Amino acid sequence: MQKDVLENLQAMRQKSPLVHCITNLVVMQVNANILLAVGASPIMAHAQEELEDLVKIINALVLNIGTLDKHMIASMNVAGDFANKYKKPVVLDPVGAGASRLRTETALSILRTIKPCIIRGNGSEIMALAGEIGETKGVDSTKDSLEVVDEAKQLAKTFQTVVSVSGEVDMITDGTRVAYVHGGNPLMTLVTGIGCSATAVTAACMAVAKNPFIGAVSAMALFASAGEKAGKKCQGPGSFLSYFIDELYNADYEDAAKRVTLG
Amino acid sequence: MQKDVLENLQAMRQKSPLVHCITNLVVMQVNANILLAVGASPIMAHAQEELEDLVKIINALVLNIGTLDKHMIASMNVAGDFANKYKKPVVLDPVGAGASRLRTETALSILRTIKPCIIRGNGSEIMALAGEIGETKGVDSTKDSLEVVDEAKQLAKTFQTVVSVSGEVDMITDGTRVAYVHGGNPLMTLVTGIGCSATAVTAACMAVAKNPFIGAVSAMALFASAGEKAGKKCQGPGSFLSYFIDELYNADYEDAAKRVTLG
Amino acid sequence: MQKDVLENLQAMRQKSPLVHCITNLVVMQVNANILLAVGASPIMAHAQEELEDLVKIINALVLNIGTLDKHMIASMNVAGDFANKYKKPVVLDPVGAGASRLRTETALSILRTIKPCIIRGNGSEIMALAGEIGETKGVDSTKDSLEVVDEAKQLAKTFQTVVSVSGEVDMITDGTRVAYVHGGNPLMTLVTGIGCSATAVTAACMAVAKNPFIGAVSAMALFASAGEKAGKKCQGPGSFLSYFIDELYNADYEDAAKRVTLG
Repeated sequence: MQKDVLENLQAMRQKSPLVHCITNLVVMQVNANILLAVGASPIMAHAQEELEDLVKIINALVLNIGTLDKHMIASMNVAGDFANKYKKPVVLDPVGAGASRLRTETALSILRTIKPCIIRGNGSEIMALAGEIGETKGVDSTKDSLEVVDEAKQLAKTFQTVVSVSGEVDMITDGTRVAYVHGGNPLMTLVTGIGCSATAVTAACMAVAKNPFIGAVSAMALFASAGEKAGKKCQGPGSFLSYFIDELYNADYEDAAKRVTLG
Repeated sequence: MQKDVLENLQAMRQKSPLVHCITNLVVMQVNANILLAVGASPIMAHAQEELEDLVKIINALVLNIGTLDKHMIASMNVAGDFANKYKKPVVLDPVGAGASRLRTETALSILRTIKPCIIRGNGSEIMALAGEIGETKGVDSTKDSLEVVDEAKQLAKTFQTVVSVSGEVDMITDGTRVAYVHGGNPLMTLVTGIGCSATAVTAACMAVAKNPFIGAVSAMALFASAGEKAGKKCQGPGSFLSYFIDELYNADYEDAAKRVTLG
Repeated sequence: MQKDVLENLQAMRQKSPLVHCITNLVVMQVNANILLAVGASPIMAHAQEELEDLVKIINALVLNIGTLDKHMIASMNVAGDFANKYKKPVVLDPVGAGASRLRTETALSILRTIKPCIIRGNGSEIMALAGEIGETKGVDSTKDSLEVVDEAKQLAKTFQTVVSVSGEVDMITDGTRVAYVHGGNPLMTLVTGIGCSATAVTAACMAVAKNPFIGAVSAMALFASAGEKAGKKCQGPGSFLSYFIDELYNADYEDAAKRVTLG
């Protein structure tokens, strides 16, 4: 597993996948900066008139419902259908699922119709999608990743997907296997868009991965390594972001791979 | 007053209010990062289909007209009505009022129908809303806060609200009392979204405040303290933002409270 | 030429032009921060109801198609028409031209109807607009500026405009003369919005320039100087952005002017 992660991260930087993000308005800039820092190439676009042209040339698609509205939902559905037509992997970030019916239902609808190969969220979002009543507080998580292992496995099985849950220890499952990723820093929850950027980097890793499970684990391993190092240098969340992007750029893939254990 | 400010800031971090921002596209990221740094929790959402669900769980609502259009205005009105229904405080940032009729009229319409408990803006915006012909230049201010004390008092009385005006010395009035906040740094006007973030933090303070006057003063005191400290460390507006967020995170509430005087 | 650049940059900071950006959702914050750092004043607005009010008071208009959709295209056309009516210069950034028909056609339509005085893009975008089949990869460039000199000249002549192309060496042409700008740092391509911000600063310089050629060269000279200095201080793209904004704020205009040569 650690060898697979190492190779996945090296391949991601070498091939520089083009990741198309239909994502929320809050995190577009930091998502693009983090994709560039890890060696991938970002494109943000939502006009239905250009989605087929773009999906043809991309290597992975991110659907992030963080500031969804009916126009964005329509764009996500069109882009998702083209991604399936052109066999490009789709990663879903169900931001705020559980906080409103619109978010929960949109995420479930994407799971049913677009069939993303990875869902990447926090504990509360995964709980909400798994049918539990999540005690979601806004878009932050009140459930730790390790509290939702059973729900994540169930969700993965139901939708034949991989579920990647960030937390103090990240937890990734394909419904059978469970991987854990150790590291990071609590400040990662105090900078907006770090979670959404983990989703974008998951898509970048997925674009060159043997399978979605390895792709999902690789991205979280890279974030755990860079986050832990940045956390030791910073004086707060402002300087953390700057150091974190630098650490992603100067990434130590062997350190990242060592952070993975199988449960 | 200083004791009230100290207690308000401590309560804000302890209770971590969920602040819903319907805000402009330029500042969403920095608003979210600054809310997280001060200990609050941000949510950005504008889809009318989810506004009731979300307003039920939030602790305060920010309406910021910085990149308004008819869709955003409609969302602000719906969210504002729900905020009144569910008794959640509303803070208005009339960005660019005076620069276009659309902005001035939208801000006045929100004041009349939603009745926010605090208006937070710069001198030019307050002049424009008070019926004077503001020499507004874009969304920056050409009027200092201390030049608009009478207009701010009048505006506060007319709409039974608190008016909080940023400037070299910040000035806050409920129509009768006037508070001044000393500190900050001129670079705060050279980083986009610092003013809008002061509005967001005003909403966070308001969510746990004895009254809007104290809430409004507390937020400006926190910014004045952190801004002054960051200004001493930075080499320009790029590094200022990073230091400023760190200083907000490591805030010294006693230093903040000492910056307040009553006029 | 170097003296013209020096005077243009000094005039830009002294007059603080108000630059109206109808730009993409990814870069709004960094564009605003960089305009403020160089001494200009930004405004972002797209509501058709306020475009005439605003275009009357601005000094230059940027049209950037990075996250275009039919609403944004309509706003760009309305704002462009008002800019022509009120004789305000327009600068076009054809982000991603060549990556989709929508982008290529929208850029060409703006060139034909709004007639911007400067097009600022990367090599692939200029190739696509010049009718070559650009090997565009997303919104990043796969063509260096020096590979597209002939196409840029042709484009400039066809549309009677100036074409400014970023690259390892920046290249600017009015169809006859060609200027080169030396400096910068490769990390400038790994921070989202640096190119779009070069466009915004081009508009700020244009607002006070003798002619579009000098305006376009001046902005690239300023970026080359600040980028080279920031690149020597940073540890990666995260800290680069912070240093770059500081260097723009503390700009050395004589160093900037010396980076220009005529071909």
